[in-house]
Amino acid sequence: MKKGTVFVLSGPAGSGKSTVRERLMQKGLNFHYSISDTTRKPRGAEQNGVDYRFITKDEFEEGIARGDYYEYAQYTGEYYGTPVSQLIPYIERGVNVILEIDVAGAMQVRKRDKNAVLVMLLPPSYAVLEQRLRDRGTESEEKILKRLTRARDELEYFDKYDYFLQNDDGKIDECVRQLEIIAEVEANKTKNNPDFPNEFFNK
Amino acid sequence: MKKGTVFVLSGPAGSGKSTVRERLMQKGLNFHYSISDTTRKPRGAEQNGVDYRFITKDEFEEGIARGDYYEYAQYTGEYYGTPVSQLIPYIERGVNVILEIDVAGAMQVRKRDKNAVLVMLLPPSYAVLEQRLRDRGTESEEKILKRLTRARDELEYFDKYDYFLQNDDGKIDECVRQLEIIAEVEANKTKNNPDFPNEFFNK
Repeated sequence: MKKGTVFVLSGPAGSGKSTVRERLMQKGLNFHYSISDTTRKPRGAEQNGVDYRFITKDEFEEGIARGDYYEYAQYTGEYYGTPVSQLIPYIERGVNVILEIDVAGAMQVRKRDKNAVLVMLLPPSYAVLEQRLRDRGTESEEKILKRLTRARDELEYFDKYDYFLQNDDGKIDECVRQLEIIAEVEANKTKNNPDFPNEFFNK
Repeated sequence: MKKGTVFVLSGPAGSGKSTVRERLMQKGLNFHYSISDTTRKPRGAEQNGVDYRFITKDEFEEGIARGDYYEYAQYTGEYYGTPVSQLIPYIERGVNVILEIDVAGAMQVRKRDKNAVLVMLLPPSYAVLEQRLRDRGTESEEKILKRLTRARDELEYFDKYDYFLQNDDGKIDECVRQLEIIAEVEANKTKNNPDFPNEFFNK
């Protein structure tokens, strides 16, 4: 049976990756959204078991010790990780899995699964990113500068990703469509269909 | 400026690759069809300078000596080759080039251009391929068996190709669409946009 593909979606705060991922999931395609575990506190309308599973530091570290995480990373003192159970069972039965994780996590996925597809979502420019973060009007100057520094660091990983998508204003649906067709062509890759030649001669 | 991508379309006789390529070209997308040189005689309605450039063996060998060919191969005693002039000038100005060539030529393209995209077009099964060749009713049993043997040889190269497309009956338009979206996602690959991070910070 054909396995599913792991899709990693990364991008700086302000790139719109949650919105793109949510719209993709609403389409009811062959995707499972992997819900990450985190030790940070819920923000705004975030729901436990929907956006993240919010757990304690002790619980997370026990999970690490048990090998429960496919990948995990620490960011500003908090853990974020993908439970193996959010990924392997889906891939095995042919469902694609989408992970919304940072560059450190993405590099771990790349190491574990050479067939994973890494996509970086970016605003059209650094200037636009800065504007978007300031327009939110909810964060301190210090926090904004931290996010901008982090965005610079993330761009260093650009060429480690397979694809990048530019999320210009009003281009969310186009980004979703690009993810859809990336998944579609992935299904036609020879490396994802190693049994085809045998089947070709025997049917 | 962004370069075009080289797309190689290969497939056994009876896979329908000429039809797929012609329909793709009719769509008026950003593709140039590379017309090969060959020393074999024209067949049926084939036109010089449209389907192939029909040249003599001496002319072809002079071209080889001058380095005129991006790739070339011999098949049943006749030469087939892609002139550099059919490829480089287009790629350089951002036009994609589609080559309809055999597995030997495809391997040479792969060697020269790591960004080339190799696509193998296949009938749904070997049994269907055999049926299609017999249904033509124009070729001797000997020729049919030769084509079938060659198809077996070509399948050995399956995993050297990036993509494969199954051309089931009535699926020509779907194959054309798959080629279109393969080209579309190719444009969003990070490796084809190495200047993006710089532009990101400077605009």
